[in-house]
Amino acid sequence: MDSLEEVNDFVKNGHQQYLPHISLDSVIFGYHDQHLKILLLKWKGMNGWGLPGGFIQRREPMSQAANRILQERTGLDQVFLQQFHIFGDSPYRLQEQSPQEFTKKYGHVVEDSWLFERTLGIGYFALVDYSKVSVQTDFFTDDHQWWDVLEIPTLLFDHNEVVQKALATLRLQIYHQPIGYNLLPEKFTLNEIHSLYETILGKELDIRNFAKKLVSLGIVKKLDERRAIGPHRSPYLYQFMKEAYENALKQGLVHTY
Amino acid sequence: MDSLEEVNDFVKNGHQQYLPHISLDSVIFGYHDQHLKILLLKWKGMNGWGLPGGFIQRREPMSQAANRILQERTGLDQVFLQQFHIFGDSPYRLQEQSPQEFTKKYGHVVEDSWLFERTLGIGYFALVDYSKVSVQTDFFTDDHQWWDVLEIPTLLFDHNEVVQKALATLRLQIYHQPIGYNLLPEKFTLNEIHSLYETILGKELDIRNFAKKLVSLGIVKKLDERRAIGPHRSPYLYQFMKEAYENALKQGLVHTY
Repeated sequence: MDSLEEVNDFVKNGHQQYLPHISLDSVIFGYHDQHLKILLLKWKGMNGWGLPGGFIQRREPMSQAANRILQERTGLDQVFLQQFHIFGDSPYRLQEQSPQEFTKKYGHVVEDSWLFERTLGIGYFALVDYSKVSVQTDFFTDDHQWWDVLEIPTLLFDHNEVVQKALATLRLQIYHQPIGYNLLPEKFTLNEIHSLYETILGKELDIRNFAKKLVSLGIVKKLDERRAIGPHRSPYLYQFMKEAYENALKQGLVHTY
Repeated sequence: MDSLEEVNDFVKNGHQQYLPHISLDSVIFGYHDQHLKILLLKWKGMNGWGLPGGFIQRREPMSQAANRILQERTGLDQVFLQQFHIFGDSPYRLQEQSPQEFTKKYGHVVEDSWLFERTLGIGYFALVDYSKVSVQTDFFTDDHQWWDVLEIPTLLFDHNEVVQKALATLRLQIYHQPIGYNLLPEKFTLNEIHSLYETILGKELDIRNFAKKLVSLGIVKKLDERRAIGPHRSPYLYQFMKEAYENALKQGLVHTY
């Protein structure tokens, strides 16, 4: 959506193509080299940052919409993407916007629009390698940036709440879900997965207990194989046990002790 | 909503009062005396069972709507109630209903209605003591029953999927969330909480490991107090550590190891 004509049509008639009252808000975590970041877009005219997002097409499965939006924004497909919360309580979510406000923001005169109505936000999060991502902006946004999770600015709307909830969920689920799959090579060293988990959790983890825990929870298995990384250094390799993991999750068996 | 006039108005004009395209579906778990059940309502004219639910008022916070619906159905207030998933992918959720179908179901002739449009379902679950609940039915339903979780029949719509996801979430979260608060007396014996957890998880738990785990996770504390329940039997009492628990949850710290 780039031309003014397309934007006009979206603002006026988008509800014929998309479900009104519901948006998808994506918290895209980026990990690389022991840094955990979040993708933010700069909204035009509002002098502020917010999360990328979009709407569900009338006949489109919701998870497909989430994948489409992620792909449109980042070019990425087939990554771990998960709904984590629906936001419908914050003051911002309870009110309608005015056309005047919209015009002021985007310099774009409209009378009435489905975009001004109360909209619940379905939060999805993804975890990607940000060094591999090429971000797309559009008519409503004019810049993007990966922000360190420890330095997130005050965001537009209720997006700080959305980010905090996503981070809390990511941390809660890191031992339940195959979260790190696309961030590590297929076979990785204990040091590599240890760094990833320490970075996501934002704290130090004793590496011996950590290895025991991962293996006992059935998340990874130790291979009978090593990687030569230097003289006298050839650590054992590990691999995610993706299938067993997903089966257990489907049955609600993971971590029920 | 009982009179035909009220129902007519709801079918025709309900979208002026409620947000269209979004329903709340409640999985109300009932626990009593080592049985775990789910509240189902029988839909009029459809010869089938489904979950209780409702809609969000235009200016109503979503969590308030969930509480209101629970209260309207069960008379209960202030129970542990939590959103757990939003359903927007199943074939039932992707299609619109026809007026003919509606008329056939309810013997009620209508032309067009916001109720026929595609509707995403926000799943909430609650856990209550079913011996204390008095269930309300309305125009659309004509019976209710508490069904054992092991004997749930084939449900209307995609409600079997909703129930399975709720049960899996309940089991995943039983060590993260203050789920049993309103099901046990303020001070309880190890046997009482052990029975509750075994019933919810649907499996046996070694009672010694269980006690250690609960205390080490900071969910309960052992009191310096006993309950006399018979000659030579006066077990120690335990209490939930509700405050520490909720603080940790807010910070996303529970169970991040």
